Amino acid sequence: MSLIVTGTIGIDTVHTPTGSAEDVPGGSCAYFAAAASCYTPTRLVAAVGEDWPESHREVLSSFPGIDLAGLETRTGSNTFRWGGRYLENLNDRETLFTDIGVLAEAPPAIPESFRDSHVVFLANTHPAVQYGFLEHLPERRFTVADTMDLWINTAKDDLLKLLKSIDGLVINDSEALLLTGIRNPIDAARAIMELGPGTVVVKKGEHGAVLASGDELAVLPAYPADGKQVVDPTGCGDSFAGGMMGWLASRGRWDFAELQTAIAWGTVSASFTLGAFALEGLMDLDMSVIEQRMIDYQATARVGDQAPVRT
Amino acid sequence: MSLIVTGTIGIDTVHTPTGSAEDVPGGSCAYFAAAASCYTPTRLVAAVGEDWPESHREVLSSFPGIDLAGLETRTGSNTFRWGGRYLENLNDRETLFTDIGVLAEAPPAIPESFRDSHVVFLANTHPAVQYGFLEHLPERRFTVADTMDLWINTAKDDLLKLLKSIDGLVINDSEALLLTGIRNPIDAARAIMELGPGTVVVKKGEHGAVLASGDELAVLPAYPADGKQVVDPTGCGDSFAGGMMGWLASRGRWDFAELQTAIAWGTVSASFTLGAFALEGLMDLDMSVIEQRMIDYQATARVGDQAPVRT
Repeated sequence: MSLIVTGTIGIDTVHTPTGSAEDVPGGSCAYFAAAASCYTPTRLVAAVGEDWPESHREVLSSFPGIDLAGLETRTGSNTFRWGGRYLENLNDRETLFTDIGVLAEAPPAIPESFRDSHVVFLANTHPAVQYGFLEHLPERRFTVADTMDLWINTAKDDLLKLLKSIDGLVINDSEALLLTGIRNPIDAARAIMELGPGTVVVKKGEHGAVLASGDELAVLPAYPADGKQVVDPTGCGDSFAGGMMGWLASRGRWDFAELQTAIAWGTVSASFTLGAFALEGLMDLDMSVIEQRMIDYQATARVGDQAPVRT
Repeated sequence: MSLIVTGTIGIDTVHTPTGSAEDVPGGSCAYFAAAASCYTPTRLVAAVGEDWPESHREVLSSFPGIDLAGLETRTGSNTFRWGGRYLENLNDRETLFTDIGVLAEAPPAIPESFRDSHVVFLANTHPAVQYGFLEHLPERRFTVADTMDLWINTAKDDLLKLLKSIDGLVINDSEALLLTGIRNPIDAARAIMELGPGTVVVKKGEHGAVLASGDELAVLPAYPADGKQVVDPTGCGDSFAGGMMGWLASRGRWDFAELQTAIAWGTVSASFTLGAFALEGLMDLDMSVIEQRMIDYQATARVGDQAPVRT
């Protein structure tokens, strides 16, 4: 089933305790599409400025599953730029600079050829912009959005309107707390479901994810990563969503069993992003390598070998 | 295979954001034995003072799997008492008072009839005392200890000596960081293995647990608990160890597959402790109820329904 993603393409500068990457490809849309396109063809809708490096276009073009027909290059505009520094624990980061560039302009147009998309991911951007995309996607059957603290703080009414119009929300734990005032991620997910979406995934970073959908619940640990395997957390949340949505679109179903499987693929996809700077961990990634990591993950996170037996 | 536990019996007073329990049964040994005895007969070695309430003895006696032959009641001594208050997030707590009582005296004696024990758990107490128990257990085949920040800070040499003599350590994430200086729980577990034990379990509370043993690794989320299901975290770590060690003793094996299964049973046992004050959640617990929770846990934490398939 056709998958479309709208969001940002950025030029990122990232500092971690062990290294730096300057002016590398980034943005929610790029990470999502790079991860999702391993599972299913992925239509990308975003805008960049004339400063967008040719080398970044080559990186995105290297993913054969990404359809770039919805990527607008705007003359006279600048690409969104973000710089950040991760602290020693790699969980917290500080933003060094943000130049929003084209994000201050009109949102990118959805090409006519993309308007029959069935599965929709609204990567993080202003909720009014996210909402605006929906009217151009009349055949959407399963729509999931991401959001962030900025919009919860500054555009809550728009966000609440969006929530009434989507099927799922993917949100991290601190944002879920900010939105609901509830620290327990299960209760927070259920409170968000009261606001509209039938499915909520709360991402807990190194501690895994919680999925609530209808009356059902799933929990997963993160893919285990030792210190050497944690290189750059940038884009892990978007890659998680990419793996999750890419799997669902490839299956064409989103019942609870598929959703539970989808967050496992999301976890696996995010683990590749974590292991290298920028999009490097997702590049040239054969599906057999992803499948092998899923097999390792299933073995590592297996809940008991035996069915319960009386002892 | 016979299981023995040494540790503390306490009189606890606990305050949580939603309630309080005064002068209730507690202590590492009590929580461990209550959980372990659901899986296998459990020999308890601990000392209490003459102030120990008869009602507390009735609580421990209500667990048919606990052998109290090693419980010493000392005339003229006082039972260990602890009071604590959990903060709003239920993850952090402050100690209100500690009266160590009999813990300042000679450790309890291991009865002659317990000296053939094969599986040993040294619940949290001074590492020199833990080490001292070992010489009275010549037939031990698998010995696991717990410890805490106090001993890492004040008795590190004794702890390092203990670590060289045991097969496994169960430790929480903040204590693993304190002991090794390493925040990543996988790396911290491996660093502890360099100090002696071949198996290390790092407990992450609401975020689950990491098991490292030899070259192998397992990760599990906690049993999912919404706000109403989180009543009193006291003793969850000891109950986790009880479920884990009770399972291993009942199986008489501790290869990696058994260890991975054991931490799942530990997680299940801890979830019962969490759901009520003191030992209430573990009382009158039929094995069929524990098994049903394991089945629910396995379903909730299942990593994908399908084996990896190309899409």
